[in-house]
Amino acid sequence: MRLCTRDNGTRDGQLCVASPDGTRLRTVPGVPTLQRLLDDWDTLLPAAQAAAEGPFDEPLDPARLLSPLPRAYAWMDGSAYINHIVLVRKARNAEPPATLRTDPLVYQGGSDAFLAPTEPIPLEDEAFGCDFESEVAVITGDVPQGVSKERALDYVRLVPPVNDVPLRNLIPDELAKGFGFFVSKPSSAFSPLALTPDELGHAWSDGRVHLPLRTHLNGALFGDPNAGPEMHFSFADLIAHCARTRPLRAGTIVGSGTVSNVDRSRGSSCLAEKRMLEVIDTGKATTPFLRVGDRVRITMEAPDGRDLFGAIDQVVARYVRPA
Amino acid sequence: MRLCTRDNGTRDGQLCVASPDGTRLRTVPGVPTLQRLLDDWDTLLPAAQAAAEGPFDEPLDPARLLSPLPRAYAWMDGSAYINHIVLVRKARNAEPPATLRTDPLVYQGGSDAFLAPTEPIPLEDEAFGCDFESEVAVITGDVPQGVSKERALDYVRLVPPVNDVPLRNLIPDELAKGFGFFVSKPSSAFSPLALTPDELGHAWSDGRVHLPLRTHLNGALFGDPNAGPEMHFSFADLIAHCARTRPLRAGTIVGSGTVSNVDRSRGSSCLAEKRMLEVIDTGKATTPFLRVGDRVRITMEAPDGRDLFGAIDQVVARYVRPA
Repeated sequence: MRLCTRDNGTRDGQLCVASPDGTRLRTVPGVPTLQRLLDDWDTLLPAAQAAAEGPFDEPLDPARLLSPLPRAYAWMDGSAYINHIVLVRKARNAEPPATLRTDPLVYQGGSDAFLAPTEPIPLEDEAFGCDFESEVAVITGDVPQGVSKERALDYVRLVPPVNDVPLRNLIPDELAKGFGFFVSKPSSAFSPLALTPDELGHAWSDGRVHLPLRTHLNGALFGDPNAGPEMHFSFADLIAHCARTRPLRAGTIVGSGTVSNVDRSRGSSCLAEKRMLEVIDTGKATTPFLRVGDRVRITMEAPDGRDLFGAIDQVVARYVRPA
Repeated sequence: MRLCTRDNGTRDGQLCVASPDGTRLRTVPGVPTLQRLLDDWDTLLPAAQAAAEGPFDEPLDPARLLSPLPRAYAWMDGSAYINHIVLVRKARNAEPPATLRTDPLVYQGGSDAFLAPTEPIPLEDEAFGCDFESEVAVITGDVPQGVSKERALDYVRLVPPVNDVPLRNLIPDELAKGFGFFVSKPSSAFSPLALTPDELGHAWSDGRVHLPLRTHLNGALFGDPNAGPEMHFSFADLIAHCARTRPLRAGTIVGSGTVSNVDRSRGSSCLAEKRMLEVIDTGKATTPFLRVGDRVRITMEAPDGRDLFGAIDQVVARYVRPA
């Protein structure tokens, strides 16, 4: 199933099912929102599956789609690609944690106000060092406290990519306070479509999405690293970590962290990595952080070239504080 | 108004209004949940206010009340009492941050699965070092990104105390990873009643609650520090900080951090402070962290002795992981 949420003027939008080619959609009778479907998955799934048979009576307008969950009860973002951790820590003169390969890095992110996939990134000050982070995420059902890695994937309901926006120049001072990210991680945006794992076929394997995640910056390919093999901690590892001391409730979103490959020819999924590679090569970062008007596009395609999730396609816009 | 949420078998419970003496309640016609009221506050407030006139047709059974928001879209917990920060950092041999008095400490906490006010704290292992933290919190409406401190209090809708449960022995390793608290901060519980600020009279002043917050441990008074004068950052400061780079959506909960006074005769609002004072005085902490069966009770009374929020009253229970 390919699920999406259409803006209908409400806070949670209208749940819709998209056609296999992603050009048309329809609503699901009796299931107004995606959160409602997740809250009562076993009971309501048949209605969604029936709707997914079509007919798809309306065209899908990407500009009207919100993030699949416009607001969520939990957004837990991991950092599961070792190559990314090593490069960004080097960029801010910080050591990788001693438990780099044994204990997942996860932070709790803001989930009350996600941006729509085509909504501008509201930036007050370019000096904040605005970046993008192209990631993959999963949306879970109710996960019991202390779930094992072996059972964790049973609770994966949907997969959407995400653009997790960091404000790089606010991070060092914030992390120095010891409480983790907060103002340095403003609202994220998710792909228009969230897919059940079966839609990914063999690409969903070992709790990983074995497909390239493609990022374009201002129309030029910036990177297309594969999200699969170098994801050191799988989604099973991440979910088990997140649920170690508390349950996760339906609609919890768990992120992979910035997708990153050691092979430099695959490019990067954030500016910070590219800048660090420039420092390593030339002593100086020359790629700037995002400026007002810059455009980031994140997509993922099936091996046969079919677009899977629609595009996260965001322009950076100047934000002016209220008086 | 004194609002609460009764367990009716749904995830969000049933919004109710409590009588002035806190012994009876009634539902609000047309407003099923507290989140719904917060989502459309201006429109639905008259219905809630009308219900608050009574009659209160049912007895209030504390055992049936959930946290006012059983799940919320955002829980942002500050640490606004300098005395607490200094003591707990000393306890883990960490320096207070350089910006202790100028930049609020806030972390994003888990908000998808709050405990009910009388629900046991599910603890897998006493070696985790389970503690309590008695705090005050506010629940906001929609706060615009970049709101000023001068306007921030306009968005405060409700005040509930909270027990923010930390697992002290998991904190050092987790903070060493640099991403802040996660597994070391499991589910919090809120007071049965959330009050509109006007219910606090003069005690709600300067964005602070100027009343003692009373904690009992196993039936004995553990502390009753005043939540007002020593709250270095007010809720206006905390909300403005939280909204610096993103908006806050209706139902966001912002916490004060552990209430703490320099005057030792007021006791403490967490075990970690008491243990640190023991180390300072005798070289050794003798008060243990919470054990299975221990009971924590958190209340706040008006100057005339009236109970304001009902009691957070939790027993620590052994949690067994699923197979």
